[in-house]
Amino acid sequence: MPKHLLADLDRLDFDEVVDRCRRVSEPFRVTDGKGFRLRDVDPDDTLGLRDDDKERSEAALAVGVRTLARLQDVLYAQDRWALLLVVQAMDAAGKDGVVKHVMSGVNPQGCQVHSFKVPSSEELDHDWMWRCVQRLPNRGNIGIFNRSWYEETLVVRVHPEILASQKLPKSLVTDAIWDERFQDIRAFERYLARNGTVVRKFMLHVSKKEQRRRFLDRIADPDRRWKFALGDVKERGHWDAYMEAYEDAVRSTATEHAPWYVVPADHKWFTRLVVAAATIVTLADLDLAYPEVDAVKKRDLETARRLLAKKA
Amino acid sequence: MPKHLLADLDRLDFDEVVDRCRRVSEPFRVTDGKGFRLRDVDPDDTLGLRDDDKERSEAALAVGVRTLARLQDVLYAQDRWALLLVVQAMDAAGKDGVVKHVMSGVNPQGCQVHSFKVPSSEELDHDWMWRCVQRLPNRGNIGIFNRSWYEETLVVRVHPEILASQKLPKSLVTDAIWDERFQDIRAFERYLARNGTVVRKFMLHVSKKEQRRRFLDRIADPDRRWKFALGDVKERGHWDAYMEAYEDAVRSTATEHAPWYVVPADHKWFTRLVVAAATIVTLADLDLAYPEVDAVKKRDLETARRLLAKKA
Repeated sequence: MPKHLLADLDRLDFDEVVDRCRRVSEPFRVTDGKGFRLRDVDPDDTLGLRDDDKERSEAALAVGVRTLARLQDVLYAQDRWALLLVVQAMDAAGKDGVVKHVMSGVNPQGCQVHSFKVPSSEELDHDWMWRCVQRLPNRGNIGIFNRSWYEETLVVRVHPEILASQKLPKSLVTDAIWDERFQDIRAFERYLARNGTVVRKFMLHVSKKEQRRRFLDRIADPDRRWKFALGDVKERGHWDAYMEAYEDAVRSTATEHAPWYVVPADHKWFTRLVVAAATIVTLADLDLAYPEVDAVKKRDLETARRLLAKKA
Repeated sequence: MPKHLLADLDRLDFDEVVDRCRRVSEPFRVTDGKGFRLRDVDPDDTLGLRDDDKERSEAALAVGVRTLARLQDVLYAQDRWALLLVVQAMDAAGKDGVVKHVMSGVNPQGCQVHSFKVPSSEELDHDWMWRCVQRLPNRGNIGIFNRSWYEETLVVRVHPEILASQKLPKSLVTDAIWDERFQDIRAFERYLARNGTVVRKFMLHVSKKEQRRRFLDRIADPDRRWKFALGDVKERGHWDAYMEAYEDAVRSTATEHAPWYVVPADHKWFTRLVVAAATIVTLADLDLAYPEVDAVKKRDLETARRLLAKKA
C-alpha cells in the first residue's frame, strides 16, 4: 500500500480521517475466528510504510489522538455507550507504550486504565472473571484492560501449576476447561455488547527475535532496567505454547461484536497507529451525539436565562 | 509581576521550570488557615499577566503538561508516593476544564479521576468519607477528586435538609458537627500524609459575576447547553453562604502537609496554569527517583543478558 496512507492528514476532514483509520486497522481485524492462523500475520508488517516514515507516522498519531479526544468528549457527554479495550501481548510487545502514546491526550476524566497483575488471595477466592468485572468502564467512558480475563487462557494454560493453585473444586477441572473458558468469555462479551459496552481486543504480535532485541535494550538502559525481571526471559522457553494459546484464543473468541485486532508489533510506531485507528473507527461507528435538549429542558433554559438577566 | 513569568519557557531546564512554577503557585497557597479571608483573594487576579498573554500562557501550559508527564513517569516507576488532588469550586468555575487541560497529556495508566455526585443509597449507608476512601489513588498514581469529602462541609452545610436525610443517629447531630467534620478531615489528611499520599486541595475561586457570564454562554452553546441544570442557577441564591462555608473550610483544614490553593478562576487560562504549576512543584519536591538496581538485580540482569546472547 502506498505511502499516501499517511499523507495530508492535517488537511482531512473528520470522515476522511476515519476512512484512513479503516484502511490502517481493518487488515488486522478478525471477526470470525474460524480458520484464523497466527502465522498469517507478520509481526514485521507495516502495510508498506517504512521506518523512515516514522516522523510522518508520529504526526499521524497526533492527528489520531486529537480525533480520539473529540470522540471521547461526545461519548462522555452522551453517557450511553462504554468502550472496553483489552490489550494482550507477550512481554515487551509494547502494551504500556500503546496505552501511554495512544491515550495520553484523552481526558483522564473519561478514561480508566487497569493493569491486572498476579491475582491477590481475595481475587482467588472468586471466579476468575470477578476481578475484571469490578473494573469495567462506566458508561460514557473508555476503559483499558492491560491484560484481562484472557490471561486465564494464556499464562494459566501454559503453566498448569497456576491452574492447580486456583482453588477450583477438582471435579470442575476437566479436559474441557479451555473450551469452557472460551465459551464463558464469548457469552460474557455478548452480554456486555447487549448492554452497551463495546469490546475491542488487541493482541500485539511481536516476534521472538524482536522481543530479544528489546530485552537487551532494556537491560542496557539505566532508566528502564529496574523493570526487568529474570522470569521474563525464562518465559521465552514457552514461546510456542504461548503462540498456540493466543491463536486458540483468537480462533475461539473473535466475533462481530467483540473482534480481535492482531496487530503487528515489531515496529512500535506502527502498532500505535493501528490501535489508535481501530479505536477511532469503533467510536465513529457508534451513534454518538451530544444529548438532545427536549421541550422541558428548553423551558428550563429559558427560565434560567431570565433569572440570570434579572441581576448580576 | 512582569510578563517574563512566561518568557522563554521552552529554553528553561527542569529546575528553572520548577522555579517558575513556584512563582506562579505560591501566592495562592494557604498552609495555615488562621486569619485566611476569602475576600483577600481576587478572582480576577492573574499576577499581572494579561488576557492577551493567552497564547503565551497556552504554550506555558504545554510545557507544564510535558513536565508533569515526566514527573508522573518517575512517580509511577518508583511506586512509593501517591498524589491526591482535590478540586472544589462553585459551578462553572472550571473544574472539568482543569482536569481536562492539565491532565490530558499525562499517561492515563497512572492517573485516576473520580467525580463525586449525589451519594447513592449504598453510600449513605456508610460514614461520609467512605465513598472517597474507596477512590484514593494507588501508590505511584495521581488521583484527582472532582469534588470530595469537602462537599460534606459545603453543600451539606448550606442545605440543612441534605444533612437531615443522611441517616445519622440524631444524638450525633449537634451544633459542633462542622467543627467535628473539619477535625475528622484534618486527622484523615494527616494520616494520608503519614502513609505517602500527598494531598493538595484546590478551590477555584470564581466571582458571582463571571459565573453568570459563563452560565449565559453555556445556555447559548448548542454543544454544551444539555449539561445546564436550572438548579445551578437557583444555587446562586445561596452564594454568600457558600463563600462562608468555603472560607471556613480553608481556615479549618489548611495545613503544611495538606495545603489549600485558593486559585483565582475568572480567567480559565490562568486557573489552569496555577493548578499545573502547583502540581509540578509538589511532585518536584518529593524524592522521586527510578528504582535502584541492587546487587541481586544486577546479577539477574547479567544472567538474562547471557541467556539472551545464547540464542535468538
